[in-house]
Amino acid sequence: MNTFGRNLRLTTFGESHGPAVGGVLDGLPAGLRIDFDEIERQVARRRPGQSALTTARTESDMPEWLSGISPEGITLGTPIAFMTRNRDQRSKDYDAWADMWRPNHADFTYEARYGIRDHRGGGRASARETFARVVAAAIVRQWLDTRDINIEAALCGAGKEIATGVFDTLMYHPELSPCLDITPSQTEAMYAAIARAKATGDSIGGSVAVIITGLPAGVGSPIYAKLHACLAEAMMSINAAKGFEYGLGMAAAAASGITTADIFTTDSKNNVVTTTNYSGGIQGGISNGMPIYFRVAFKPTPTVMQSLPTLTRDRQPTTLPASGRHDPCVALRAVPVVEAMTVLTIADALLSDTFYR
Amino acid sequence: MNTFGRNLRLTTFGESHGPAVGGVLDGLPAGLRIDFDEIERQVARRRPGQSALTTARTESDMPEWLSGISPEGITLGTPIAFMTRNRDQRSKDYDAWADMWRPNHADFTYEARYGIRDHRGGGRASARETFARVVAAAIVRQWLDTRDINIEAALCGAGKEIATGVFDTLMYHPELSPCLDITPSQTEAMYAAIARAKATGDSIGGSVAVIITGLPAGVGSPIYAKLHACLAEAMMSINAAKGFEYGLGMAAAAASGITTADIFTTDSKNNVVTTTNYSGGIQGGISNGMPIYFRVAFKPTPTVMQSLPTLTRDRQPTTLPASGRHDPCVALRAVPVVEAMTVLTIADALLSDTFYR
Amino acid sequence: MNTFGRNLRLTTFGESHGPAVGGVLDGLPAGLRIDFDEIERQVARRRPGQSALTTARTESDMPEWLSGISPEGITLGTPIAFMTRNRDQRSKDYDAWADMWRPNHADFTYEARYGIRDHRGGGRASARETFARVVAAAIVRQWLDTRDINIEAALCGAGKEIATGVFDTLMYHPELSPCLDITPSQTEAMYAAIARAKATGDSIGGSVAVIITGLPAGVGSPIYAKLHACLAEAMMSINAAKGFEYGLGMAAAAASGITTADIFTTDSKNNVVTTTNYSGGIQGGISNGMPIYFRVAFKPTPTVMQSLPTLTRDRQPTTLPASGRHDPCVALRAVPVVEAMTVLTIADALLSDTFYR
Amino acid sequence: MNTFGRNLRLTTFGESHGPAVGGVLDGLPAGLRIDFDEIERQVARRRPGQSALTTARTESDMPEWLSGISPEGITLGTPIAFMTRNRDQRSKDYDAWADMWRPNHADFTYEARYGIRDHRGGGRASARETFARVVAAAIVRQWLDTRDINIEAALCGAGKEIATGVFDTLMYHPELSPCLDITPSQTEAMYAAIARAKATGDSIGGSVAVIITGLPAGVGSPIYAKLHACLAEAMMSINAAKGFEYGLGMAAAAASGITTADIFTTDSKNNVVTTTNYSGGIQGGISNGMPIYFRVAFKPTPTVMQSLPTLTRDRQPTTLPASGRHDPCVALRAVPVVEAMTVLTIADALLSDTFYR
Repeated sequence: MNTFGRNLRLTTFGESHGPAVGGVLDGLPAGLRIDFDEIERQVARRRPGQSALTTARTESDMPEWLSGISPEGITLGTPIAFMTRNRDQRSKDYDAWADMWRPNHADFTYEARYGIRDHRGGGRASARETFARVVAAAIVRQWLDTRDINIEAALCGAGKEIATGVFDTLMYHPELSPCLDITPSQTEAMYAAIARAKATGDSIGGSVAVIITGLPAGVGSPIYAKLHACLAEAMMSINAAKGFEYGLGMAAAAASGITTADIFTTDSKNNVVTTTNYSGGIQGGISNGMPIYFRVAFKPTPTVMQSLPTLTRDRQPTTLPASGRHDPCVALRAVPVVEAMTVLTIADALLSDTFYR
Repeated sequence: MNTFGRNLRLTTFGESHGPAVGGVLDGLPAGLRIDFDEIERQVARRRPGQSALTTARTESDMPEWLSGISPEGITLGTPIAFMTRNRDQRSKDYDAWADMWRPNHADFTYEARYGIRDHRGGGRASARETFARVVAAAIVRQWLDTRDINIEAALCGAGKEIATGVFDTLMYHPELSPCLDITPSQTEAMYAAIARAKATGDSIGGSVAVIITGLPAGVGSPIYAKLHACLAEAMMSINAAKGFEYGLGMAAAAASGITTADIFTTDSKNNVVTTTNYSGGIQGGISNGMPIYFRVAFKPTPTVMQSLPTLTRDRQPTTLPASGRHDPCVALRAVPVVEAMTVLTIADALLSDTFYR
Repeated sequence: MNTFGRNLRLTTFGESHGPAVGGVLDGLPAGLRIDFDEIERQVARRRPGQSALTTARTESDMPEWLSGISPEGITLGTPIAFMTRNRDQRSKDYDAWADMWRPNHADFTYEARYGIRDHRGGGRASARETFARVVAAAIVRQWLDTRDINIEAALCGAGKEIATGVFDTLMYHPELSPCLDITPSQTEAMYAAIARAKATGDSIGGSVAVIITGLPAGVGSPIYAKLHACLAEAMMSINAAKGFEYGLGMAAAAASGITTADIFTTDSKNNVVTTTNYSGGIQGGISNGMPIYFRVAFKPTPTVMQSLPTLTRDRQPTTLPASGRHDPCVALRAVPVVEAMTVLTIADALLSDTFYR
Repeated sequence: MNTFGRNLRLTTFGESHGPAVGGVLDGLPAGLRIDFDEIERQVARRRPGQSALTTARTESDMPEWLSGISPEGITLGTPIAFMTRNRDQRSKDYDAWADMWRPNHADFTYEARYGIRDHRGGGRASARETFARVVAAAIVRQWLDTRDINIEAALCGAGKEIATGVFDTLMYHPELSPCLDITPSQTEAMYAAIARAKATGDSIGGSVAVIITGLPAGVGSPIYAKLHACLAEAMMSINAAKGFEYGLGMAAAAASGITTADIFTTDSKNNVVTTTNYSGGIQGGISNGMPIYFRVAFKPTPTVMQSLPTLTRDRQPTTLPASGRHDPCVALRAVPVVEAMTVLTIADALLSDTFYR
């Protein structure tokens, strides 16, 4: 299953150190004029190696377009295929890994399932697969733009540093300007925590917050394709994700029903709104027109600058050498991927629901 | 989308106060001898009205089998259809709701999507739909039993009462007996919290913990159908679910990579195991043979014994009268549903993966 | 796989002599007011035993509605489930079949696949399964009616009697009134052929012709879900179907490109039409607005009033006794089923394509 | 919908004169060692321009492998992506077509559906898309080889020249060596018919026959994914296909039930076989272990060396100039594509069914 989505489908391919990674996006409406500069900006956001805090691997690549777009830059309604070649391969670096299983990686489980594994840089399990997600979403986002739907993600936690209150405005005063309220000093503190982890050769976990605005009421399917179930599935498909919560989230377990009832009223344009937004913009699996917000927790990168005991493929004890390069906080790199998967999920929901209207 | 699963598919139907609710289960292997007494026991667990803490509605119903099982009680490989009629309908009770939207319910969003809504008892959005999930899972569980796969869920939080430490043994000492370690006094405290909420006419949220044991390594698809992504989707398809976390969960965001590395070793039978289980039994989206555990948070039941302001369908202010009956803690009723969705998800993963072997 | 369709999905269940047969129709838009009398008329067309030419089994049943329709008879957008109980079961009649494989039936192949088989009346392989298809289509057809799309099927061949020229007007003079041009004397001749087969205890094959009018240009997907590929799949899912052809059909193999080019022109309303319709209303897998027509060939009913040699389940020679009742020409009973599957296919194509518009 | 298959899925992309065409094959088991020479042989069979009878376009291309195969040439279980660039583009040739609709082509219908069309060489509707099908099948066929399943297609009709009797041995004497019995003189006559059509600037239709041997009994799903329904869908997805028939085929309509009953017996190894094979190897949608055979009819290539009247995109009369190059009989080029789609369909059925075993 390398395909995501029902009516808007992204199929991705590629191992980290194989010839190329890429994707095929099927189901996007015809007639959309693509802004390629905007795609470059989106793809650049994902690229590692752009700050001292992420891995040293240089991925300067941009997508090569293979199909689905006319010479004038307009979508044809046919599948949009794209790829980029893997250049900075340094496969030799990985030979030490060929015969052992790295802890908290997918090495052992891939072998358990497939009986074979491309050990070079994680193979298919590498974060490099997310290149395809980000490229596809960079196109799809332009279709959402035509409907004034906006999606924004940001780091909201790194190790012990948490951007507390990030959802408070959204929850208690949704009538105020809807954006993620993370202050520069909060961001600074999170970055400092990542730098400290890096300095000690360790890694830390982190969280990413997301807000969706402009989505009209009525999007989502009420039983098994609840909008938040689709979002949860999408988020948990991102490497290292360990938890998902929306609206009140995990804290809902401790809440009272009376104090968290979102009361309906109308705004100045006679639209139905709620005075609070504990529901997180979704009720019964269907959007209610209020901002949608959720949070995703990521575990620390398993690759650390310290040697670890492990097993060889023959089940003999061995030692995994300390890594020479690593992302100290994978959540930081996950921000554009979280945004991309949100874009794909929302667009798919819109394209799947349309036939009811 | 009223179908769950890829190769093992459950399609459910029915409104709370329509003629019947039921389901069609397709893809279960032929030749399984069904223990109908065991199905009755499982269905009885779901039934509301069995303790003072759940809703007063009496659902004494058992499934009527319509197809897919031979007269000798053996699955034919053809679709297994079942249903139960809605008896305790009291539709009159709901007439007051026909023209208003209850806060935190799906009334407004169903209308936004479909332009029409069966207002009686929540219609399709009612928890009554879970009857079909529990019945289907009661069959499928018997197939899992033949493979010694066990799934257990339990309430682990109700309002402010939390069964702390429920995952501690699993996380730090997975070699010990794998079960959910919730003490009788913790359960008692949670039940007391629910009783207090009921006494005040309020409702509270809650959490459900799940453990899966006996699942071999190698189950799950590594990219978009990661085993935990399928579990997340399944859990978030349950009414009132607000969050999902597995393994380290949301706490992963604050963790260190070095201290949470699950080190591989072998047990006395030379099976590959890990000395800790922060990963929660899944690495790279594929099971690693260790116990899988996760937690689901539920919001408080939106129906409370207190009147609330709301809008009519014409967007005029009105008052929702206090409810005459309600579940003070929906998480309590969710326990067998969480278990059922876990059963369906794991069986579907097994039936979807087999072709690779 | 007991589900048909992508966005409009029909899941059917039921063995011929199990408790019930029925279906769940998911994806039909909300807000459609159902004419139940019209459904009864459609279902009555399918019923066997209504002429001397079909089987003696009495199926007087009408669907019992289980969900998805409001008390006022309006679709809710939720799944529409329905069923009918099996009454005229006479299972005893079938005990002789339990331990042998009937020639040209699905007995042996079901056992090869499932290792178990409900031998009573063909079990799931019985034509009784088509009850669900006809009921579902009787609803869906009412949605097509709102778009002025009309679908008509008729017997066009029985044994050696062929309604020659049935597509001639459509192919050469599509501007004339678009209907299936089968004369009463042709029909009489076909019925006589069936009566002769019945008299000799034999059965004969037959063909069914279909015409679709009112479908606008632009419906269908151009590569793997070509409109005619979906129709072919739908038709070949009907018991006893052996061939499918549309437009020029099998005769296309002998045709010349120059003489069969459908020339574009405009009609009096400036719509694009073609002066001939060898294409059968579909070009490149997408409807072009002209009438769509196709033909399906059915084999003779395998059940005949003559004993036949066969094998027991232990692979020992035995004799299948002559049947006491049979359909001498299954194609005759297939007419409403062919129509039903056409209805479902066209509606699914419309509901799947809408998101492009 | 540019994806074919359920558990073995091929997604294709590419316009005839865009940057590239290719595909992503997902679901093939890991551990298969690929014979790349054999793939080249299969791809070479499809290539046009290899005889005087097919189009002059030179497609010398071989697939470039992008993912899913280890450096040692073994499948990884991850998606296998491949592509080839479009070189012989001569887009200028097609400028004349930009503003008119070619008769019997997909020009008008693509515009009706998408509002936009890549007019260069047919765009996505070009036969060039079949490159991806043939490449994918060349891999999958190697997996079928490991199970001794063989698939062979051949031209069996071109214009008025028909290889009569091609299925006779299979139908009446299936115990004899199972292959397509087309004599060299029949082939010669068909080629001569094609040459005559080419000489007159016309095109002719044709038929392709297929035989599948080695497939065990029990493959296929009995209701909506009947094996022959999947084959029909696959065949009708090939450009220019107008009809599909298997076993007795369209002639079944005129047959008698008693004379076409395939009688079960056992062969020298005590396998269940039938003494005749009118069923074409499939009963009730499931293979019965006998050879499967079917026929596909193709219309004449719509491109001919004669000018034709048509309309501009503004619905004004115009003239399509005579084409400078064309395939006089598209059925000839379809042979390897028919074989490829058969390979994909059979492998998907095997990979979808396994979980029942």
